This record gives sequence, structure tokens and C-alpha cells, in this order.
Amino acid sequence: MIASTRDANTLSELGSFGGLYAVPASVSDPVLVASADGVGTKLKIAFRTGRHDTVGQDLVNHCVNDILVQGGRPLFFLDYLACGELEDTVVSSVVSGVAMACRENGCALLGGETAQMPGFYAPGEYDLAGFVVGITPRERLLDGSRVNEGDVLVGIRSTGLHTNGFSLAREIVFGHMGLDVDDRMPGMSGGVGEVLLQVHKSYLHSILPLVEQNRIHALAHITGGGVPGNLPRTLPTGLGAVVRRSSWEVPTLFRVLGEAGEVGEAEMDRVFNMGIGMVVVVSPTDADAVVEDLGVAGERAWILGRVEEGAGVRYEP
Amino acid sequence: MIASTRDANTLSELGSFGGLYAVPASVSDPVLVASADGVGTKLKIAFRTGRHDTVGQDLVNHCVNDILVQGGRPLFFLDYLACGELEDTVVSSVVSGVAMACRENGCALLGGETAQMPGFYAPGEYDLAGFVVGITPRERLLDGSRVNEGDVLVGIRSTGLHTNGFSLAREIVFGHMGLDVDDRMPGMSGGVGEVLLQVHKSYLHSILPLVEQNRIHALAHITGGGVPGNLPRTLPTGLGAVVRRSSWEVPTLFRVLGEAGEVGEAEMDRVFNMGIGMVVVVSPTDADAVVEDLGVAGERAWILGRVEEGAGVRYEP
Repeated sequence: MIASTRDANTLSELGSFGGLYAVPASVSDPVLVASADGVGTKLKIAFRTGRHDTVGQDLVNHCVNDILVQGGRPLFFLDYLACGELEDTVVSSVVSGVAMACRENGCALLGGETAQMPGFYAPGEYDLAGFVVGITPRERLLDGSRVNEGDVLVGIRSTGLHTNGFSLAREIVFGHMGLDVDDRMPGMSGGVGEVLLQVHKSYLHSILPLVEQNRIHALAHITGGGVPGNLPRTLPTGLGAVVRRSSWEVPTLFRVLGEAGEVGEAEMDRVFNMGIGMVVVVSPTDADAVVEDLGVAGERAWILGRVEEGAGVRYEP
Repeated sequence: MIASTRDANTLSELGSFGGLYAVPASVSDPVLVASADGVGTKLKIAFRTGRHDTVGQDLVNHCVNDILVQGGRPLFFLDYLACGELEDTVVSSVVSGVAMACRENGCALLGGETAQMPGFYAPGEYDLAGFVVGITPRERLLDGSRVNEGDVLVGIRSTGLHTNGFSLAREIVFGHMGLDVDDRMPGMSGGVGEVLLQVHKSYLHSILPLVEQNRIHALAHITGGGVPGNLPRTLPTGLGAVVRRSSWEVPTLFRVLGEAGEVGEAEMDRVFNMGIGMVVVVSPTDADAVVEDLGVAGERAWILGRVEEGAGVRYEP
């Protein structure tokens, strides 16, 4: 599985001290884009369901999206898996998810560390972190400087919670609602475990072509902090965003969680992605074409709002 | 502290989605060398002593040594710190150690993740992982192909346990010997906590000049597995190593642990570094000069043995 992620630039075998990766000669004035992340308490759902092959995909896709927003195409990935007692089937399941997602993102799984740390983790539990390194030609770096007043926000649909809001979601689902992972999620066709474990989506294949065509002004990956916490980080000083609530239907899962947990709208917006996995900032003249091209690439995309003078995110009906 | 690790190639501010680092234009045919690691159960000593500013240094230095053995000079580092409940003073202490060691190794602290994961870690405990990316011109990659029969092994002194063997060391010191971290370590001038927390040494500044002068045939970082577990990984098929026991005095700490724990010689060699932090493989005609140059650079170095036909490590008196 790991071997299948190797490419022509992967120079090392697994098990060397360090992993080796040749800087692609085709990239002019290359800038490396790196990010570290974990899966957070979504892992508790994996423990509770005994399903360990999805969290590695969450991790890789999350990291890949994080460097994509600056224009980075992933080159390689390393993981860190720590547990109290190594269980071979669990480790192999987790790593298979990591390797599968690396392959899907065209990214070499260059190495990693599996640490056995007695007394650190409860039996059957573990922690998982990952590190991705990508590359972009310097002229294509997305740093907010291309964003103008009047630019259009395109939203792209998420696949469930992604990897954020799990502490609150678990409290609502297992506490307030008194459900367990095998119960059906009210209002939905899937089980609780299945719905909560929905894999965090990678937007690499649908968005990278637009980056390479220089059509993207900025990108925001909607993680912890939601749209209000993440979108402003991609905008230059003096510009804010207007998000039109009527432009999309909040997915059932978030409505169920909000109602059962009696969570206010502002908190919902801050804790959850509310169905928006990525926000793409584009020129108003290109916006319809971007929505269409994202649709052709398999995404559900729509015009979410616009960039205006000011700061932060303002919602309008 | 973090800002002080930035250099001319660091393009991003902390808090961006990903960290940005320009590939240095001065490196011809550049190969990236990457490694991920944790601190392991040495963290338990930090918890027990309440001293959290050294484990970050252990982590960075360990990672830097791991890429140095393939010829890599570190460019940047990212850390992952996970705990149940964030304690600001602990986090700041850990990160200050990471930042200090990054600065000492000329390596930018490009980003990282601090994860609060309720229910994962005992109060006051945390896990810490790190990820380093370095670079080398392809022609200077150390891959074992330069090693010849008759080459000389130069040993370089470690600073205590480094980051390996802590499960056994803790069992011996706190179990068999019945000591606590504030007690004096028998036969040594320091306290138990102080001796066990000795910072894992970085060999970057003493060894990199020799790498750049093309005088190094291979390098082995002595971590888990000891000399027999690590040295053979750097030698090509058909070659093994002879290590002369009389060439160095095993430091007091290892002798104390071995005697108190009644640990056999072979197990000691596999679990601990036995006073050898790094093994440098050089030409027999250059060996004395390498020992002298390492001495001038502040290391305690000596002729440890030689490369011979065969496989693995053979000890002789």
C-alpha cells in the first residue's frame, strides 16, 4: 500500500533514517508549502465504531486542503501514530487509510513514526498526526493579494463534519440525543457512526486545475472556526465578506445537531462547516464558469456571496 | 521565540493555513530529506519533574540528526503537540524548547498544530511529535554507496540516553532502584531527573562541514536498536562492522542502569546508545584528521572500529 504511493521523485525506501524526495525540476522558483495537523476527537468515533480505515484519509485530505489554499500541490506526506499497545490490525487499518488517501492525492507516503507509549493512551486508543509538504511556483502563491472588492465567493459542499466540531457533536449525539454509533441518525438514512465518520473531502483534483489556470484569487479551507474563522484569513486588510444564507441549504446533519443541542446560529457557524468545505474567491466575470467547471469536476458548487470593503464575515438573508 | 527562527527563505507568517519556505536556489539538483519523530516515554520524566523546556529540544535535535545521516541540512520544522487540557505555561515551555533548538540548528519553525483533545491524555500529560525537512544537493546524498571495506568507524559521544531506552530506564530507576526524580543518581553528581532529561545532542554543526567537504562515507544516528540496530542500515550489502569495546569507556549512567537492572550486555547494546550518539564512517587515511576536526568542533570523538566484509555488527574486546 505504501509502495503504491511512490513516484519518480521518491528516492528513498521506507525504513531509511529520513525520506528522500527530489525537488521537481519543472517548477520555476519553487516554494515549499507545509502543514501539520491531527484528526482531533473524531478519533473517538473510530474507537467507538472499531472502524479505523477512514481517519487516515481524514488526516491526509485535511492536510492537502490546507496547503492547496496557498496554491500548493502535495509532494509527500509523513504520519505519526502513537498508541499505548500496538495492535497490528488497527495500525495496518489506520496506515491503509493514510496510504489510500496519499495515492488519491498523488502524494508519496515518504515515512513516519509509529510510537508505542505504554501509559499514554487508553487500551484500543491512539493519536494520529500528519505532515504534508507541497510545492508551488512562487508566481502562483495564493497570499490574498489578488483579491478585489466585488470578487465573488463560490462555496463547495462538504461531506459532513469533516474533522471539526467533534467535541460538541459527540456531546449532542451521545449525550443530549442518547444515541450510540449503531443507531440510525434521525432524519438521515445512515447510522450515527457512519454519518459522523464521513471522510473529510480533498478538493485537490477539482480546484488545482483552476489554480494552474490562474483563475483563483483566494481559497479558504473551512475547518475549526467555520466560515467566519477561516475566510477572513485569506482576505487582505480592508476587505471582508458577505455570505448569503439563502444561497445554500444547510445539510440535515447540521440542522439535527443544532436543534437537538439547542445551539445558537452564531455558535453553529463557528463550530461547524455548515455544509461548506471550501470557499473559492474568483473574479465576478469568471464566477459562473468556475461554478460550472467545479460541477463538471464532480463538486456541488454555488455562488455563496461576495467580497466587500470592511473586515470579517457578514451574513445576509 | 518562534519569530527568531525565521530566515530569508521563510515566506509565511505563523497562523497561515500552511507554512511557506522557498527552495534555496544555491542547491544544485536539490533533494528534500524529511523525517517524523516523537519523544517517546522520555516525556514521562518531563511530567514527573515538571520541567517541560527540554523535550522540545530533544525532538528537534533527534529529527535533525535523522536527516543529517543522509546528508540533509535542515530547512524547517513543524511540531504537533496534543494534550487533554491546554495549560498555557506548559505549552509555552514546550514550544520554547522547540524554538530554541530550531534556532540552534538554523532551521525555521514554520508551523505546527496544538491540539486539545479532552479524554485522550491524563491531566498534565501530553504527546509531542515533530517533522523536519532538509535539503542536500543530489551528488552529496549519503546512501551507503561510498562505504568500502577497511573504512574506519569514528564514534562521537552522546549526552546520556538521548531519546531512547526510557521504558527500561524508568523501570530500573523508579522500580528496581526505588529512586525518585529529586534523588541523586548513584555514582553521578546530578539528580535523577536532571540526568535522565539530558538533552539529546544535535551533531549538525560538527558533522555538516565534513559532509560538505565530502569526507563522510556514511553516518549512523544511534537511536532505538543501539549500534547493532542502526549502523548496519547505513552500510551496503556485503559489508558489516567491527566495534572495539576497549575503544571507549561506557558512561557511568549506562553502567549504573545495567548493574541495577541486571541487564545483559547484548540487551544493553540494543536498548541504549552506550555513550555513542553518532557513528561516522570515513576513509582510513582521513580517520585521524576527522577525529581531530570533531574534537576542535567540541565533540568527544574516537576510533571505534572498522568496516569489514560480512553483515551486521561484531564486537571485539
